[in-house]
This record gives sequence, structure tokens and C-alpha cells, in this order.
Amino acid sequence: MGDGAVTAHSTIGAPPTVAHGGRLDAARRLYPDAPQPWIDLSTGVNPRAYPLPPVADEVFTRLPDDDAFAALERAARRSYGAPAGADIVAGGGTQAFIQLLPRVFPAKRVAVLGFTYAEHAACWATSGAEVDVVETMDALAEAEAAVIVNPNNPDGRFLEPQEILSAASRMSQRGGLLIVDESFMDFTPERSVARFANDAALIVLRSFGKTYGLPGARLGFALASRSRAATLRAALGPWAVSGPALAIGASALADDAWRAGAAQLAARDAARLDALLAQAGFHIAGGTTLFRLAAHPNAARWFARLAARGVLTRAFVEKPDWLRFGLPGNDDAWSRLAEALESVDGG
Amino acid sequence: MGDGAVTAHSTIGAPPTVAHGGRLDAARRLYPDAPQPWIDLSTGVNPRAYPLPPVADEVFTRLPDDDAFAALERAARRSYGAPAGADIVAGGGTQAFIQLLPRVFPAKRVAVLGFTYAEHAACWATSGAEVDVVETMDALAEAEAAVIVNPNNPDGRFLEPQEILSAASRMSQRGGLLIVDESFMDFTPERSVARFANDAALIVLRSFGKTYGLPGARLGFALASRSRAATLRAALGPWAVSGPALAIGASALADDAWRAGAAQLAARDAARLDALLAQAGFHIAGGTTLFRLAAHPNAARWFARLAARGVLTRAFVEKPDWLRFGLPGNDDAWSRLAEALESVDGG
Repeated sequence: MGDGAVTAHSTIGAPPTVAHGGRLDAARRLYPDAPQPWIDLSTGVNPRAYPLPPVADEVFTRLPDDDAFAALERAARRSYGAPAGADIVAGGGTQAFIQLLPRVFPAKRVAVLGFTYAEHAACWATSGAEVDVVETMDALAEAEAAVIVNPNNPDGRFLEPQEILSAASRMSQRGGLLIVDESFMDFTPERSVARFANDAALIVLRSFGKTYGLPGARLGFALASRSRAATLRAALGPWAVSGPALAIGASALADDAWRAGAAQLAARDAARLDALLAQAGFHIAGGTTLFRLAAHPNAARWFARLAARGVLTRAFVEKPDWLRFGLPGNDDAWSRLAEALESVDGG
Repeated sequence: MGDGAVTAHSTIGAPPTVAHGGRLDAARRLYPDAPQPWIDLSTGVNPRAYPLPPVADEVFTRLPDDDAFAALERAARRSYGAPAGADIVAGGGTQAFIQLLPRVFPAKRVAVLGFTYAEHAACWATSGAEVDVVETMDALAEAEAAVIVNPNNPDGRFLEPQEILSAASRMSQRGGLLIVDESFMDFTPERSVARFANDAALIVLRSFGKTYGLPGARLGFALASRSRAATLRAALGPWAVSGPALAIGASALADDAWRAGAAQLAARDAARLDALLAQAGFHIAGGTTLFRLAAHPNAARWFARLAARGVLTRAFVEKPDWLRFGLPGNDDAWSRLAEALESVDGG
């Protein structure tokens, strides 16, 4: 969930700090005079959330039982298209798996296809691995474990399933692991490798909170071979997902009509956002339907000016020309963004 | 959360299976003709749940931010009486910490003061540790890491803070770790060692869901020295607690009046339960105010007979004479239990 961009080598006991979007609390302190309410465009979370179904008190007052997990995982299996030979494991957000993977499947040499969501490299580095952030698929080949974020955050770079499966096949031959973080794949399911998750080298991560606009529920999934999935399930232990997340997730993942509609709305909004940003002099450098990556020589000044007007975007320390914009969620947010982009000279 | 009782040695990749209470799904399958609704007395969860406060949609639609974690941890720090030199870390249930500790603070020789909640031994064994379940405090002395559940589940055995601090002091001298699982301590705070959690050897675990009757929220805490707490926090990663759990937990932990009232009600109910069980021929072998441990030569037959009447209790494979009873939560549950206990000849 969320996103970061600090690539770090580290050792056990000195965990690297990763910057994330969604830090309205920090923004409020830095820009106390910004108009209220803040328009938070700093994440890739769908602002048109899945309508929260009524949640029975019992989901809080009882321990979630195996049947509740089974129902959720059935809905996820169908929604993501998991093949018969794969299993699917629910956890408290994609991040929970990113934290867990280096501990459960330790590796000494790890490669991450960058520039990308920084938590992958950070968590592997914290486990004591030597982590290389590489630029090409070929450069993944020597690692014991490799990470690909597809589509990539923040630039939206897409790899074809065939490229990923070729890399998985090479990994397989030497018992390695290929993690494919598909946190932003829900609106382009035809490009997912979830349907190949029975491959012994593959672990596919899926996020619930971003697409469904409910990141506070804390829900994510790992798809993998039965053997790897059993190891992950044992490492998470019982009751790794809250009662409300189990109930809401099972409803939402069964609702194909909502997802189809959400994909259309997000695509429309993404195009509208591109037009606004282009008009203000930004170059659209990429993104997915849930966020757009915009480049500008004065991106840092734009960040500050937008923040002073109560619009929070995502800047990247390592990429000073970039700003990432999530989708505005309502008419007021669109107006505030448009005004903020017009009212200042970005030059 | 919940409880188990299978003590197991194991190796990585072959996680032991632990039995738990709260498995109404399984009970329904085993006893399909039992009268509805089931009366679930198989857990130690308070049936008088903290009244759920209204939860804003925003706790689901936004990523929980640092301020929300800080507010919850402030409330927990005050409620549990954490000392200045200690830090408190929120996670998705006590079980999340039990899973995490062997990975974060690895040890080869581990001792667990038994007979107790089985997940401690199971999780250490899964990490590759050699785990001894011991019967005396002295027998903990040789281990690199030791676990005490206080008050103990299921028999309610209490250790005085001074005994625990002595053990911690011995552990400290050789850099060891003493984990004190205080999941059932909330109604006897004067006996807690949370106020000594700045001790470098100590990690104190506290459960939210049991006392507050909201185990589905998935919330628990670890109190430890700043250094150990920082390591735990980094291992959990960002957003390890859901938005609703953060909001509900912060409210509930600030509500001393509710907790005081809940303690009185639970004590009254525990005495009432003891009387009912004694009348039916059980010997009260121990327990806490949230559950009672009852012994009977025909405990297994009692389990089956109660289950056939829709009353689920907790049996222990290793302790065939024991049944554990949680508190009935309403008049109907009390009546159903009383009738079930009267209607059969337990002999």
C-alpha cells in the first residue's frame, strides 16, 4: 500500500526509512496555512471507493474463522484468475507480504527492477541481503530473488506476461524466486501473470485497498505454488486479516460490475488529469489509471506551490523532475487542482 | 488471540498445527443437529464487547497515517502504564507478535513455561529453535529466549511481578530475551510487568481483542525497550494495523470507566459460572475472569454432550480431564448452558 521511493542498502538493525504518499498529517504541519480540506493526490488509491457494505458487529466481536478466510480467498481466486495448481493467501495488505518475503524465503543476492516502490529493496536490505536496483530484465538473471513491479509505480512501465514468464523460467532452473508486485494490475487483468502463479518460481502480489479505495482495511494477497503459499500462510499465522476486511473484501472482489465501472471512470479521470497537467506545462511521463506521473523542470517548486494551496502530490527525492498525481475524487477536488495549476506561474 | 494447546517441535517448512477455540465453523459441521444459535464458550473473549463507536468511512478510505498510530500508542501507553524508557508498538493482534518474535530475535534454545497457549512453542519451533516446554521458573534459566504467559492460559496461574523481574534480570545478564504474554492481564493491572518494560530483556505482549470483546479488529501491542521496539516496528512495517482498529482501539483504551465496569461484570459472571459448573460436578481448576478451567473425569463426554446442545467449549487433547468455559454473554446463553449442564448425567 502507499508508495515510497528511497532505494537503500542496509543491514539488520538499521532499517532504512522509506518515504510514502498519504502523509496528510505531515503536510498539515509543514503547510499550516493551506486552505482546508486538503486535496490528497499523493497516493495511487482510487478516490471512488467501493461502497462500504453494512458490516455486522459480529465481524468485530468474533475471531475470524477459517470459513471467513476460505470465502475471501475463493472470491480473490476467481477475481484474479488463479490457476488450479496455485494457492492464494490473504494478508493485512500487500506491504505485509513485502515485509514477510525476505524472512520466509531468504536470499543473499536480490535484484529489484527499478526505479520503483522502495519498500521491496528496503525490506530485502533489512534482512541482510545485498540488493541491486537494476534497469533491465537481463540484469535480474544473476540474483537468487528478483522483484518486478508491474505495472510499475510510479512510471507505469508495463512488461508483457511473456517477458515475465521467461524470467520466471530462468529463475526456476536454479531454484530462485521471482516476485511480481501487481498492486496496480486490477484494471488491466489481461496483462497479469496471476494465471501462471502455479509456477514454482513465481509469487504474485495483489493489492485490495488501491483499486477498491479502501486501503485502511489492510488487505492484500499473495498467489503462489501450493508449497510456497503454505509456507507464507504458516508464517502469517491465524487471523492475519481483520473481520471487517474479510467481509468487505469478499463482497467487493465478487463484484465484477463495480470493477468494470471503476475502470472506466478511472480511465476517464486519468485522461482528464493528463489534459490539466499538460495545460500547466507538465510532460506526462507515465502512470497507471490510478495515478499519473508528470515531469517538469521545476517540479519541486510546483510541489510547494500546490501544497500551499492545499493540494498534496507525491515528490521523489531521487527524481527531482517528477511529481505523481493521484486522481481527484470529486468536483471540488478537480476545481481546487485546476485553480492551483492556473494560479501560479510554474516557470 | 484465541488459544491453542498442541505443544510441538518442528522444523522450518513443516509448521505444526495448533488447535484453537472459536471454531464455530467446524463445530457446525461436526454437530449439524445442534440447536441454533450456537453458544460459543470456546474462547476467552469478553462477550460484553466495548460498544463500537461510530467509525468514519475515512478510516477505510485512507491509509492510516503516523498520527493515527501515535494516538493509539499514546492511549495504550497510558492504559498499560508503560515507563518512560520503554516504547509500545501496535500490531495486528498479539498473535502477529508471536509469529514475528522468533524471526526478529532469533534464538536456538527456547523455553516456554507450560502447559500454556501453544502458539508460542509452535512459532519458535517453526523458526528452527529447539523448544522446551518446562514446568518451573528455574528451568527457564538456561534458554536464550523464554516465554511466560501471565496469567496463564488456560489454568490462570499467576506469577508475581518480582518473580518475573528476577528471571528478566538473569536473562539480561546474558543478553537473553524474556517474553511475557499478558493477554489476560487487563483486569489485574497491578500484577502486570508492563511498567518494567524498559528492561532490556523484557518484551511484554498485551491483547486488545479479548478484554474489549473485539478480536475481529485484530489489535495487540508489544512493550519493550526502545531498541527492541524499534526493531519490532521496522519488522512490522508501515500500516500494520487497520484504520478501524486504530480508531476503535484509541477510544476504548482511553475509557477507564468502561474497563472498570467490565472487570466487575466479568468477575461476577466468572463466579456465577463457577457455581454452575460445580453444581454439575466439575472441579474448578483455575482460569481468569474471562474464562474458567473446569476438570471432570468425563470431560470429553461433557464436551460432546454440550456440543450436541449447541454449547461449544474448549477441550485440550493433552489434558483430557479439562474443559475451558468462556463467559456466557446474555440471559439466553446462561439458560442454555444451565439447561445443558442439568439435562445430562455427566457420570
